[in-house]
This record gives sequence, structure tokens and C-alpha cells, in this order.
Amino acid sequence: MKLIADNLRITKTDMQGALKNRDSKPIKELVKLCVAKGSCAIDVNTGPLGKSPEEDMAFFIESVESVTDLPLLIDTSNPVAMKAGLKAANNHVIINGFSLEPRKLEKILPLAKEYDVDIIGFLLYPDSRVPKDEVQRFEIVLELFEQAQAAGVSKERIIIDPIVPPLAWEDGIVQARSVLNVIRTLPDLLGFEVRTIGGVSNLTTGAGDKEKKNLMEQSYVAMLAAAGLDYALLDILNGEVVAAAGAAGILAKEELFSWGMVPG
Amino acid sequence: MKLIADNLRITKTDMQGALKNRDSKPIKELVKLCVAKGSCAIDVNTGPLGKSPEEDMAFFIESVESVTDLPLLIDTSNPVAMKAGLKAANNHVIINGFSLEPRKLEKILPLAKEYDVDIIGFLLYPDSRVPKDEVQRFEIVLELFEQAQAAGVSKERIIIDPIVPPLAWEDGIVQARSVLNVIRTLPDLLGFEVRTIGGVSNLTTGAGDKEKKNLMEQSYVAMLAAAGLDYALLDILNGEVVAAAGAAGILAKEELFSWGMVPG
Repeated sequence: MKLIADNLRITKTDMQGALKNRDSKPIKELVKLCVAKGSCAIDVNTGPLGKSPEEDMAFFIESVESVTDLPLLIDTSNPVAMKAGLKAANNHVIINGFSLEPRKLEKILPLAKEYDVDIIGFLLYPDSRVPKDEVQRFEIVLELFEQAQAAGVSKERIIIDPIVPPLAWEDGIVQARSVLNVIRTLPDLLGFEVRTIGGVSNLTTGAGDKEKKNLMEQSYVAMLAAAGLDYALLDILNGEVVAAAGAAGILAKEELFSWGMVPG
Repeated sequence: MKLIADNLRITKTDMQGALKNRDSKPIKELVKLCVAKGSCAIDVNTGPLGKSPEEDMAFFIESVESVTDLPLLIDTSNPVAMKAGLKAANNHVIINGFSLEPRKLEKILPLAKEYDVDIIGFLLYPDSRVPKDEVQRFEIVLELFEQAQAAGVSKERIIIDPIVPPLAWEDGIVQARSVLNVIRTLPDLLGFEVRTIGGVSNLTTGAGDKEKKNLMEQSYVAMLAAAGLDYALLDILNGEVVAAAGAAGILAKEELFSWGMVPG
């Protein structure tokens, strides 16, 4: 299980400031820190961006690429911004992402073919509702692959994000287990080793004690690793959760063990 | 997933002293601490005991029962000591345990029928070798149930211990994943909700940094919980692993979540 930093988000005030002032320093510093902490890619979550999405996205991509050559996940729902990111990027890029929402099928999915890049597919209904059980999730997976095929995007390009639910949702804990089952059984269902990605921090979205949140994320990230998750999107600066993810990744995958492999 | 203290072990010098001096105080103090930390049963690991196994075992059982009415796992390979424990105990008792080893089939397994109690079955070959994959483990499970049936012990009385392997073994990490798969698939294989128990501390037996050991146990106990383990046998005084086990137990089983459920 590889770890991907979700730290670069436009919702943070320092990132908003960096964008507004065209000051790349806070972006560079953050990305360097994420790289130092072992991130294997950077999620560039710009949100939809404002009046000049193309320039804004190019600024973000250039700032990030000036300090790392790791792959970038371009994380925006705005097709104009997404296309600008794909144009601007020199690093390896993953589109994050598309769903059955008509606008995304029409405007985002074709970019994966046009730029010949990987694309993340969210397990959401066309109206962005979250499915309620494994059967619904599998139906959506199959529909995502059909749509991808129709758009000329090969199945190996798709990375499935089953959408980790917040525990704060009424049935969040039940859905969190459903997500684990989906990750585990998806390769058998599809007949090939489809890659999966999950947002660990989503589990504890909302109010709550930080230590308790960490405890739940640490346990859940181990369960995700055991289920076979390929990429964990998380706060790479949260040492406790990252250490748990590292240990879980070893337990889930390695053929030989030595204590030297364990973080810390 | 319920937690069971593995702390009461004859291998500890204070327990040896307590036995030798017939001083029940160290035993009582330890058991009270285990109960306070949330243990739902006490594993009484006396080992085979020496020249007077019946008196020694009775002393242990009486000492433990003087401070708790929790169930006791009587953990000895000596049939004489086991029988003495079953005679002496007033609390609910579980025999820990039997295997395909001829002496255990002959001398320990029948005690489960005689005293009408639960008994733990270890997934080991008759010569105590550890199986090497899921197929071998399933074969042993089926043989254990056949032997139990022949001894008049109903299948609901059996609790399977798949034997958590030390990571320090050459293929320990591979076997640790095999154990997870066995726990997950056993109910389907057997056609009923067989209960399972696993010794978490076994994973990190041997030399190694304490923090790294905790990290591996925390991740593995979450994987055990997700696989459906019923009883985790562990060092109940190890706060970090116990907290992880508590969080994992919530994630693995609960239908509703609130932060008040989370330890800490």
C-alpha cells in the first residue's frame, strides 16, 4: 500500500493566500515536507477554482513540480481546470477523478483518453449519492468500466475510489465495512488486478477528539491494507496514522520480514 | 472482538514466587489490574506444573477466583493439572486447549465432555508442527471437529486458535496473512459461526524494539478484528495495543457509531 499526501488543499488558508498572491513558497514548503515524509505522489486539490482556472491551475502545478518529480493527482471537479493541469504538468499525472455524474462522463473522462493518463473512478451515483451496500457498489463499478470503455479509456487506466464514508454518518460504520469488502472482492469480480485508492482522513471528518480520530484511522488503515488497498490518500504529516499505515502495508504485502522495515 | 488478558503466566518470576510461597497476593493484584483494564476473561497459564500439579493448579484457580468471577481459560498441557483446574473452578471455564497431538486427543479433549465446557482447538499437526497454508489449516480444522465429534464434544464447544505466528519466523509474515484468511473464511467453510481466538503477542515474540513491536501488533490486531476474530488474547496492560484492539473491535462489529464508544 503506497501513501499519497492529501495535504495540498485549497481549503487551507495558506494555500488560498499562496494562490491569491502568486506566492509559490508555501506550496513548495508543503510539498517538500510531504515528500520527506514518504509520500509517493501529491494530490493537488485545487477545488473548482475561480475566474481564471487555467492560470490558477498552471500556477499550482508549476509550483509543485518545481520541488518534486513525483506523480501528481489533479483533484478538481472543473474540467477547464483539469485540462489546464494536464497541459501544464510534466510529471506523471492521474486525474482525480470521474464518476457517473453526466458532466464528469462528458467533460472529465475523455481527458484520460486525450492525455493517455490514469483516472480515478468514484463509486457514486450520477446524482452524487453514495451507494448503500456492496451490490450497489459493484453495479456502479461495472457502469464506470462500461462508460470508460465507451470513451476509449482502457480498464487498466481506471483506479477505483470506493469513497470511505465518515463514521459520523448515520450508517457510516456499516458503509466503512462495505468499502473494505468491495476493495477485497473487486479483483475477483472484475477478473483483473484493478487498483484501488481510499481517502483515510474521510473516516473521521467532522467534530471529534484528535486522539480518538487517530485511533480509528490507524485501525481502519490497517483494515484497508489487509483488504488490498493500493493507495492510501492521507494526511502524510500525521505521524501516528502514517506509522500505522506503514506497518499495515508491510503486514499486507511483504514476503519476508525484518524489524528494519518497520517505521520508527 | 473481546479481549482476554494473557498476563497471568508462570513464566513470570513473580508468579513463580507466588506459587512457591503459596502467596496469592501477586496473583490477585495482577488479576484485579487485568479486570480493571477491560479483560473479559483471564487466561491462567500455569504451564505443565511440577510435582504436585493438582494442588498447584487449585491454588492458582482459587487465588484468581477470589478476586473475579470472569471466565477462566485454563492454559496447561498437563491433563492432571487441567482436570484439577476444572474440579477447582467455580467460574465459567474454557479449556486451553487441545490439538491433534495424540496425548491431547486422549487426555484433554475428553475433559470438555466430562465437564461440559468450551475447549480451544489449536491448528497444529499431531507432532506440533505448524501448517504452512490455508489448505493445510482447513484440513486440520476438519480433523479437529471429527475428533471432537468422536469424543462426544459438540461443535459449538470448539473455539479455533489458528496460531498467530511470530514475524521472526522465516515465513512468519506470510503465515500471519494465512491466519487472517482462515479466520475470515472458516464460518463459510464449516457452515456455522465457529468462534476463533488468537494470541496477538505471539506476532512479536523474540528480540525487537518495543515501539516497533507495538506498531505491528496494533496493525495486526485491526486485521484480526476485520477478519472476524472473536477473542484476542493479549497483554491487557499494553495500553497502545489494547486501544487499537478496542477501536478495531468497534469498526469490525458495531452497527452504530459515536465517539463516546472509542477508548481514551
